[in-house]
Amino acid sequence: MQYLESDSVRPAADGRSVIIIDQTLLPQEIKYLSLSQPEEMFEAISSLRVRGAPAIGIFAGYALAVRARLLCGSVEKDSFFSALSQEADYLCSSRPTAVNLFHAAERILKAADGKSPEAAAAAAMNEAVLIHEQDIDICRRISEYGLTLIRDGATVLTHCNAGALATSRYGTGLGALLLGAERGMKLSAFVDETRPLLQGARLTAWELSRAGIDVTLICDNMAGLMMQQGRIDACFVGCDRVAANGDTANKIGTLSVAVLAKHFGVPFYVFCPSTTIDPECRTGADITIEQRSAEEITGLYFDRQIAPEGIRYENPAFDVTDHELITAIITENGIFRPPFCFE
Amino acid sequence: MQYLESDSVRPAADGRSVIIIDQTLLPQEIKYLSLSQPEEMFEAISSLRVRGAPAIGIFAGYALAVRARLLCGSVEKDSFFSALSQEADYLCSSRPTAVNLFHAAERILKAADGKSPEAAAAAAMNEAVLIHEQDIDICRRISEYGLTLIRDGATVLTHCNAGALATSRYGTGLGALLLGAERGMKLSAFVDETRPLLQGARLTAWELSRAGIDVTLICDNMAGLMMQQGRIDACFVGCDRVAANGDTANKIGTLSVAVLAKHFGVPFYVFCPSTTIDPECRTGADITIEQRSAEEITGLYFDRQIAPEGIRYENPAFDVTDHELITAIITENGIFRPPFCFE
Repeated sequence: MQYLESDSVRPAADGRSVIIIDQTLLPQEIKYLSLSQPEEMFEAISSLRVRGAPAIGIFAGYALAVRARLLCGSVEKDSFFSALSQEADYLCSSRPTAVNLFHAAERILKAADGKSPEAAAAAAMNEAVLIHEQDIDICRRISEYGLTLIRDGATVLTHCNAGALATSRYGTGLGALLLGAERGMKLSAFVDETRPLLQGARLTAWELSRAGIDVTLICDNMAGLMMQQGRIDACFVGCDRVAANGDTANKIGTLSVAVLAKHFGVPFYVFCPSTTIDPECRTGADITIEQRSAEEITGLYFDRQIAPEGIRYENPAFDVTDHELITAIITENGIFRPPFCFE
Repeated sequence: MQYLESDSVRPAADGRSVIIIDQTLLPQEIKYLSLSQPEEMFEAISSLRVRGAPAIGIFAGYALAVRARLLCGSVEKDSFFSALSQEADYLCSSRPTAVNLFHAAERILKAADGKSPEAAAAAAMNEAVLIHEQDIDICRRISEYGLTLIRDGATVLTHCNAGALATSRYGTGLGALLLGAERGMKLSAFVDETRPLLQGARLTAWELSRAGIDVTLICDNMAGLMMQQGRIDACFVGCDRVAANGDTANKIGTLSVAVLAKHFGVPFYVFCPSTTIDPECRTGADITIEQRSAEEITGLYFDRQIAPEGIRYENPAFDVTDHELITAIITENGIFRPPFCFE
């Protein structure tokens, strides 16, 4: 396949490393990292250098294909597959909420299983490319469906980042906007800054404004006022996991946006590849919410101590939006409206 | 009256300056400022060195009393009152939403009107002390009423800062917690950090933890999850202005907390002195929402550029919570439940 400079994840030409845009440095710096060691790959996911459910899946595919290539020369033939499996388990432990990660790892292992190391490494890379190509195709189809939900001149509120950085090319939650802009539509977006990690301010505002969309950045707690003032036509968000009943896990704060949208009569749309839907997860109650470090709230981006020493924090990375708050869930297979029943 | 070290606003012993705790430096530094010039006083309000509706009223009282004292020696007897009136107008233009500011200025001018400069300055200081004493009394009565709304062991969510710093001694929104803690009750609080100026993280977390309350700091967008998890017994907030129908202007994000509380069945209480209620303001639609600078969102507390250059922002300082979202409004005169009709 053809890789673009803007792809947030791609393999090196020699297949011996995976190259990512370090998303923690955007928008100040566009820096590419070349990763080949398991610890670097784990850290890239856990530190959110690569982030967004589909991008994590694509990254995991290439990462394990790279590891398969490098293991060819460093472990015995007999222990090759168990070594690769162990590395897959290790990589999968980097983020407990990301179902795409597990799914990609499974596909790579299945492609490699029962083959000689050389053949397994080649099959793993083929499978990784396939994961990526499928995601590009999926994003384009999601974006086409999404575009039917808004008219020219629409203003969309979005939370966190579900654009090309988080996926491939168009993205999921932002895909319709990016595709619409490409087609000359005049679209506006209110972007929640998305505390604590500011993915909205750092990434979404950057992606959307580069694409020619009229962007207004707000703090998360301002979304309610914008809806009350009748300035939002629709809310578009991505997601990390959807349960069989439509309950949806996404970045912390998504639940609040959904409750506000319901209250103010604004449609609330969730965009994701169908692989993000986990039919074995019956409801949102079955989704484990990842807790992250206090440092993200208090120290990461601030130039001073913003809270008293020794204070307690909670830093849940996700929340679960009840299916009753969701107007529709859009995948590459179409626009699904309630009652949701993914089986 | 007796002033305490912890009073966020008080006059100097000689009545020639007003002393404030610079709230922009908390919790890192407890620094007192001594202000005597009109520009310094204006800046103290507009830059939020002194903040919180009642505290601004108390400050305005002392500030104009100080100015009256200093004008005695610097303007002609005939122009004394018009000079003081002009300074009052200037001070009142520092924050358009703060009704307590206008109310205090009016009281000082009324006390000074028709008197000789010396007598006017003395009357102004007496009136300023009275404003302060009345606020302490009001806060204590609000806190007593508030305490009847929670039981021992309760967990309260609060937004922004409506404690002693924002008022006098007990505060309004935090008064019940501070009074309860003083009486040995075991109380917990979830504190919204309150973007963009982080009054929750910087001020409320500091005040409540100093008082022995079990504080957990969260980002604004996490409040919904805490309510969904059934961990919040009640929401307590202060306010800047209440319309005759109960619509309430308070720090940006209060509307979201109220909508979430309604959705999750958590009672939402608003605390304020009765002077914050403006019967001439019929509904929230009559309340002007102050827009503040983009710098507060993008630059003030961050150690790096967090958003792309040239991006557009909105920074409304307040929002208006519809009266239908409010369980009760508590003033020194009692607990008011819907339908609200303040006339």
